[in-house]
Amino acid sequence: MDFKSVIRDIPDFPQAGIIFRDITPLLAHSQGLSSIIKAFQAKFAEISIDNIDYIIGIESRGFILGAPLAMALGCGFVPVRKPKKLPSAVFRVEYALEYGTDTLEIHQDAIAAGKRVIIIDDVIATGGTAAATAKLVEQTGAELVAYGFLIELDFLNGRKSLPNVPIISLASY
Amino acid sequence: MDFKSVIRDIPDFPQAGIIFRDITPLLAHSQGLSSIIKAFQAKFAEISIDNIDYIIGIESRGFILGAPLAMALGCGFVPVRKPKKLPSAVFRVEYALEYGTDTLEIHQDAIAAGKRVIIIDDVIATGGTAAATAKLVEQTGAELVAYGFLIELDFLNGRKSLPNVPIISLASY
Repeated sequence: MDFKSVIRDIPDFPQAGIIFRDITPLLAHSQGLSSIIKAFQAKFAEISIDNIDYIIGIESRGFILGAPLAMALGCGFVPVRKPKKLPSAVFRVEYALEYGTDTLEIHQDAIAAGKRVIIIDDVIATGGTAAATAKLVEQTGAELVAYGFLIELDFLNGRKSLPNVPIISLASY
Repeated sequence: MDFKSVIRDIPDFPQAGIIFRDITPLLAHSQGLSSIIKAFQAKFAEISIDNIDYIIGIESRGFILGAPLAMALGCGFVPVRKPKKLPSAVFRVEYALEYGTDTLEIHQDAIAAGKRVIIIDDVIATGGTAAATAKLVEQTGAELVAYGFLIELDFLNGRKSLPNVPIISLASY
């Protein structure tokens, strides 16, 4: 499937001058999710990434892609969430946005040390959220093996903010 | 899989006196998501529910269950989201909470009239969120065929707030 032909451009969202890449038409396609998951699996297999213990999905569009990927790989799914959503003890990371800061959390007991994980989100833009999630993974003692994104906004060069692991993306702008 | 043996009770979350049913240990289990999805499929098949066009997932734990179910059924996935998250024109519903109100949105063009949909969420408690989502589905002109919940809190009797369609739940408290 040609993902970019099904992803919709929405000008001036969430603010003037931004073109938002809307994945909802792709998700609504009867073969959309299965095509995305097969493409992730093929790209990870190409670079011999296997024996994954957990997919980490970033709230909340990362949940939509991460959960089916975990099911397809037969591994666990662990959510990284906004504050006050996870009910048990958490590790927390605060990170800078263009204006202000944001916070993400992961359950402290979600992942045992040494387990192999992939972080999944819908988009990599500046890389701030994905880099913050790597810091959460580091606190669990797990091994970050790779990142997977449906969309990469090349011109923002978010890759340079991320740890030195393979980064897969399925559609670039 | 005995789901209740893997769902964790967290007392006094999000407030004193509430026992929160935490599904994250079930999601983290390597066979957790696939067992949930197989159980949904079996229960829907039992009552001859088929030819589903879209799974509607309610933000955000409904995304974690709805997306893999859509993939397994080979149908589309449509997110129902909190305000200001969906970038195109939306239908909106406001509904009462214990204190105050909440709002949910769906893209106006997400689902064509007459399409058959199932609404998925992790928990049915009082049923307010699920009933509001049915109102969004009604605005699209689609046909609500069934509800699916991982957890049902029987003592809150949320079913009585929902439209008269089959309601499947996989673990009751």
